Amino acid sequence: MESKFSVSRKGILFVISGPSGVGKGTLTEMIVEQNHLQYSISATTRPPRVGEVQGKDYFFLERSDFEAMMAGDEFLEWAEVYGNYYGTPRRFVLDNLERGQDVLLEIDIQGAMQVKAKFPEGAFIFIAPPSEAELAQRLEKRGKDSSETIANRLLCYDKEMAQMANYDYVVVNDELESTMAQLIAIITAERCRVVRFIGGG
Amino acid sequence: MESKFSVSRKGILFVISGPSGVGKGTLTEMIVEQNHLQYSISATTRPPRVGEVQGKDYFFLERSDFEAMMAGDEFLEWAEVYGNYYGTPRRFVLDNLERGQDVLLEIDIQGAMQVKAKFPEGAFIFIAPPSEAELAQRLEKRGKDSSETIANRLLCYDKEMAQMANYDYVVVNDELESTMAQLIAIITAERCRVVRFIGGG
Repeated sequence: MESKFSVSRKGILFVISGPSGVGKGTLTEMIVEQNHLQYSISATTRPPRVGEVQGKDYFFLERSDFEAMMAGDEFLEWAEVYGNYYGTPRRFVLDNLERGQDVLLEIDIQGAMQVKAKFPEGAFIFIAPPSEAELAQRLEKRGKDSSETIANRLLCYDKEMAQMANYDYVVVNDELESTMAQLIAIITAERCRVVRFIGGG
Repeated sequence: MESKFSVSRKGILFVISGPSGVGKGTLTEMIVEQNHLQYSISATTRPPRVGEVQGKDYFFLERSDFEAMMAGDEFLEWAEVYGNYYGTPRRFVLDNLERGQDVLLEIDIQGAMQVKAKFPEGAFIFIAPPSEAELAQRLEKRGKDSSETIANRLLCYDKEMAQMANYDYVVVNDELESTMAQLIAIITAERCRVVRFIGGG
């Protein structure tokens, strides 16, 4: 009877998301390093930067190829940013899940909601800042955005935080070690969920 | 805006269950000690044993009082075992949850399914043995049951294991340390679930 629960399970798609500046990039890197999740590789039409490797950093695509994939509904989500397309190829994610490999996708809130519409069985994790003031500080500190961009981001704060209700989990990124412990716990717990076992649930 | 996610949440009822002999008693004791869960105190009509304390080990009740509570649907589950009643008083559990205290209930599979019918928002964890042969060995080793009882238990094995599909999580109790790590992860992850926050989900 062991076969009832020792059967292999399909992989789980973990989606890490939250407001810009909340620290999801750092968390994602640490998780991929420590926990053997396959990072979801995005497709893009922007040209490769020096040192970037095709199929590792990105799938670099011609604009016409990207648009053909859009037309074929081959993305879990996509967006156009400053004239370049970015998207999550459905096939890459599903192939990994099919062979039991969990996948981690780090993405903004709009993208996560697109993914949820197409793949609701993912585990959706919202990374929240300890407070709006703290988020503002982090955005300023990392020095990546103009003060206008930061002001615009903060205008969206309430609307973005309200999206939390559409996620499965919320983790407040207050202190890195504790945040990481909670994320690892979520990954471990999801792997124990009965619905994750083929034939279970 | 912090109030959106720093609001207090209701307590969570964790139900730990599985076949007799799987080791759920030991796991429950360790969790209560390490993780600050309130153990759910049962009511019973059996007389107290030496050293047992009213309201700590059990709520010791007269048969007529227990039956009045049964009639009033005041148990999350109850059973009669060797002429004595045992039950989980609903009020004790709900009062704890109401003030944000998580509660741990260790119970056999039939009891867990009664609880699930009355309180589906609990987190139901199935502790599975590594194999049927391993379970048989554990039952013999603990020396609590006659060989006839053990044989009867093993007859129920397939039916009990099939109940796993009605749980939220399954943890194979193979190696104590790894089992405990998974249980603690499940408790931590459940505390991050958006539906656990008042007003969330």
